[in-house]
Amino acid sequence: MSPLPLDAQLSAVFDNVRRRRDGQVASYIPALAEADPDLFGVSLVTVDAGSYDIGDSHHPFTIQSVSKPFSFGLALDEHGLDATLESVGVEPSGDPFNAIELDLRTHRPYNPMVNTGAIVTTSLVRGSNEVERTESIVRGLSRFAGRRLEIDEDVFASERETGDRNFAIGYLLRNFGMLDADVNDVVETYFRQCSVVVTAHDLAVMGATLANGGINPVTGQRALREEHVSRVLSVMSTCGMYDYAGEWVFRIGLPAKSGVSGAVVAVLPGEFGLAVFSPPLDEHGNSVRGIAFAEEFSQRFRIHLMGRPPTARRVVRRTYRGDAVRSKRGRTAPENAVLREHGGGTHVIEVQGDLGFGATEALSRAVQEELDGATRLVIDLRRSGTIEPAMGAMFRAMSGMVESAGVELILAGLPQTLRGRVPAHEFVDVDSALEWCEDQVLSDAGLPDEVILGLDEIELLAGLGAETLERIENVAELIVLEPGDPAFREGDPAEHIYFVRSGLVDVLLSNHERAKRVSSVGPGSVFGEIGALEGGLRSGTCIAKSKTECTVLRWDELRAICAQDPAVLDRLYTNLAMTLADRLRKADDERRALW
Amino acid sequence: MSPLPLDAQLSAVFDNVRRRRDGQVASYIPALAEADPDLFGVSLVTVDAGSYDIGDSHHPFTIQSVSKPFSFGLALDEHGLDATLESVGVEPSGDPFNAIELDLRTHRPYNPMVNTGAIVTTSLVRGSNEVERTESIVRGLSRFAGRRLEIDEDVFASERETGDRNFAIGYLLRNFGMLDADVNDVVETYFRQCSVVVTAHDLAVMGATLANGGINPVTGQRALREEHVSRVLSVMSTCGMYDYAGEWVFRIGLPAKSGVSGAVVAVLPGEFGLAVFSPPLDEHGNSVRGIAFAEEFSQRFRIHLMGRPPTARRVVRRTYRGDAVRSKRGRTAPENAVLREHGGGTHVIEVQGDLGFGATEALSRAVQEELDGATRLVIDLRRSGTIEPAMGAMFRAMSGMVESAGVELILAGLPQTLRGRVPAHEFVDVDSALEWCEDQVLSDAGLPDEVILGLDEIELLAGLGAETLERIENVAELIVLEPGDPAFREGDPAEHIYFVRSGLVDVLLSNHERAKRVSSVGPGSVFGEIGALEGGLRSGTCIAKSKTECTVLRWDELRAICAQDPAVLDRLYTNLAMTLADRLRKADDERRALW
Repeated sequence: MSPLPLDAQLSAVFDNVRRRRDGQVASYIPALAEADPDLFGVSLVTVDAGSYDIGDSHHPFTIQSVSKPFSFGLALDEHGLDATLESVGVEPSGDPFNAIELDLRTHRPYNPMVNTGAIVTTSLVRGSNEVERTESIVRGLSRFAGRRLEIDEDVFASERETGDRNFAIGYLLRNFGMLDADVNDVVETYFRQCSVVVTAHDLAVMGATLANGGINPVTGQRALREEHVSRVLSVMSTCGMYDYAGEWVFRIGLPAKSGVSGAVVAVLPGEFGLAVFSPPLDEHGNSVRGIAFAEEFSQRFRIHLMGRPPTARRVVRRTYRGDAVRSKRGRTAPENAVLREHGGGTHVIEVQGDLGFGATEALSRAVQEELDGATRLVIDLRRSGTIEPAMGAMFRAMSGMVESAGVELILAGLPQTLRGRVPAHEFVDVDSALEWCEDQVLSDAGLPDEVILGLDEIELLAGLGAETLERIENVAELIVLEPGDPAFREGDPAEHIYFVRSGLVDVLLSNHERAKRVSSVGPGSVFGEIGALEGGLRSGTCIAKSKTECTVLRWDELRAICAQDPAVLDRLYTNLAMTLADRLRKADDERRALW
Repeated sequence: MSPLPLDAQLSAVFDNVRRRRDGQVASYIPALAEADPDLFGVSLVTVDAGSYDIGDSHHPFTIQSVSKPFSFGLALDEHGLDATLESVGVEPSGDPFNAIELDLRTHRPYNPMVNTGAIVTTSLVRGSNEVERTESIVRGLSRFAGRRLEIDEDVFASERETGDRNFAIGYLLRNFGMLDADVNDVVETYFRQCSVVVTAHDLAVMGATLANGGINPVTGQRALREEHVSRVLSVMSTCGMYDYAGEWVFRIGLPAKSGVSGAVVAVLPGEFGLAVFSPPLDEHGNSVRGIAFAEEFSQRFRIHLMGRPPTARRVVRRTYRGDAVRSKRGRTAPENAVLREHGGGTHVIEVQGDLGFGATEALSRAVQEELDGATRLVIDLRRSGTIEPAMGAMFRAMSGMVESAGVELILAGLPQTLRGRVPAHEFVDVDSALEWCEDQVLSDAGLPDEVILGLDEIELLAGLGAETLERIENVAELIVLEPGDPAFREGDPAEHIYFVRSGLVDVLLSNHERAKRVSSVGPGSVFGEIGALEGGLRSGTCIAKSKTECTVLRWDELRAICAQDPAVLDRLYTNLAMTLADRLRKADDERRALW
């Protein structure tokens, strides 16, 4: 397969950024100082597990500080919001990441992205000792990455040997009562956490898991409770990039975290995780190429979180009325007359796109406008995308607004999450909703529900004369269908024509996936005539919806009877042509209203 | 009109928050200390100028620090990004807003939201003295608010009298070479800026202007260049809420700015501005009710910027092929046969929703999948929402991917912004695109373009016999239509029936907005027959698309000729019924493919 468009885009940025040769590989522990400064890998993983990899995206390195937001997430999952915030704050400190300092008032570390905060966070992860906590962390990070991660014991040993500053932090924390566990245990667990081996691809999957509300898009496994995701991302956004956090938001505009091994992971919530690995660091301790790549990428695609374009506000796809667009249910002539006169009180709003806050608010104003002159208001949601659960309250309030205007609310195609939660009549699709509205209009107009027609009331036979009708009755059969009985099925031989004398028959067409009602045929109407006319096999299925009486005969017999008098034959054919023309015209009317 | 759903939601939050009675009215200048602590107003304005106001949302107060992001915007507009960043940084300081401090290395104030930075920003606004700069600021803020704002001279006098600290900052800045202008001038201008009188409603409009890419949604006037909008919002996001900035992002997740008069303005980019006014402040200097309202509102509607739900990825509405869905152009029987056999190489992808980064990337993978077995690929964009201009490069790369697979790319309904910018065949709508693809298929199959048919080749007249055709020819008229000539128009009397012998006629229907082609009729076909059959007036318009020859006669004359022999009449009517049935079946096929 040829490369995808984004491959080329990412490669172009990659090639530009590769020219950058400034920065220094981290030297504060010997194991990191050995890193090859030319290594350069980029990976992007989307919330539906689309994946792009360039360069050394599968080269292993230790995760270092990039572990901090993820272990903060594990602490939140273990202790909840309030207990976690008793031990660590969420304010940027304005000081270096390894400063030995606590908030003077609360004795909390400023935030979980500086070492003081990260060591507290590590102590909060599930487990009563070093081994258990390390296993919790490795297992937790592995859920984010979608594969079992391992610890680099050499790097761990090197970290521990040179880790006096972090031991100092541990004892300071314990001195102020911010650490319950054994200092040695916790600080060593923290070093192990920093020594977990990942690749840029792993980090992109971990970022995509945050972008995807806490569910790993590759494994489908939940790695973090949804309520904590925005919290982790917030702390990344304000404190994730050392002393460069403000400028990072200013220039790139995505929550992110970097580490001294040269990795940066950035997240576009709802869309993707992006990871860059390139060891040389700038004076803030951030990967030079990581910053450069993210900045060029963000500008190229305008994905800055603060730069979202104004909502299109095309939430209303179109509006129409029940006199112009009718359900697929066939009606008798008097019923049609009533619906033409009174069907206009049914107003339909067809919705499209995702229903977040802005779109739902705009929809509510469109609903208010449509109330004028309406008896019933149908909101057709089949074409809507995600309806955020938080919008349930807005829908309930919309229902109240509609009711207090004396209008009935009908919701078609409501998603599972909102079904039964909004006071309204619910229908699977707009066709059933329209049919129900039509039934209400007819019932308001006092038309009787049930009729059994004589053959002289069948539209196709109008004006044929009593003698002809008697001949037809003699050769025809009267059949009674119970609800669900088929008159014929797709693929049956097509020879007969059916006159409906009472009841209702659904005409179904199927494509390879499912069957769908394209019309239904009531008293006075005919079905099966096109198949009979053309011969061959049935192209659709006709099934009784209610108890139905039909007169059935072969098309060639009907023609032979009528052919005995040219005027009768002319009449039959004119009726037939008018019936077909009427159906075509109805299809055109519908098209016209739906443009 | 009944209240909108959001009115009730905002009122519910308002009533909950009104119970909060803690906090102290600011006392550092006498004029602020007099504020009534019970005042409480909320306003929300959307990017399409929808507006909600509760409580004291039209009560005037001085803007104070809420002016800072807007004057930072004015400085960016005046000097551009690089020059502005030479004078002021964008990093959170971790210190109080009125700290007398500068970045040790660069001598820049940390950011434009602390007083040191705001005073520098004020000095950068257009003007060579106090009067000119003040006018620039008032005019600039007024553009954001959509009305001419005024200065409260009493508050200004009070600010100046008690403003020693800010004068000290001014001289410190000038000492380090960060201020070119007269210190007195600049600091007094800064006090005037803080003394501009606004209401919560004004601030909501100002926030909505930032949400709307810099264009005031009420006046339609641009208040800030689009490139600077995300920069202003970024600084609000990291530094806008004093020492509470980190926790604000953590809990509320929107860029915001507060001021000591008790105002908070928050922005959901692309959606709305929200302002709360309530004078009592907490220990950080933020309005107690402002914070409480924003937190409850953000949680209720889940509008946290870091909590965006995963993109629905329903960008592909459906796919279908050119053998199942045909253009509205009528074709001859041999043409139909070719299209049935070879039309399946035309693959169509129908797109829906906004095309931001994630949706465009997902579309590109769908395009890659559809290349298999395709000769031509149509992307139908009529139902897409906003296509961000930055996605142009992705579309160009998509075009390259399609081309290198040896497939022709056709774009239907491309928005204005991308027209002519993507290598592809462009068509206004999918119907014209399909027609062009069909023409290519027919031309590949070597079918001749131009034919002039005899009457015996007209489908409706098939099998009538030479004698009948001669009688028809004798009473009929042969007309020649040039492109654009109408055969008849909507509303004309409907009496004649037309046989097309060469050329092409478009059948147009109009609703109250526009006319649209519903079909076109080529050699061998008939038009006008439904109107003639039913009598009355034409319901559509038929216009020659190319030079067209038609045989025209009255329907009742045709019927009279055929009625001379019942077998001929039977044949004519059977042909007519089959023609209509064929059109209905084609409509059903299309419906089936488009489910």
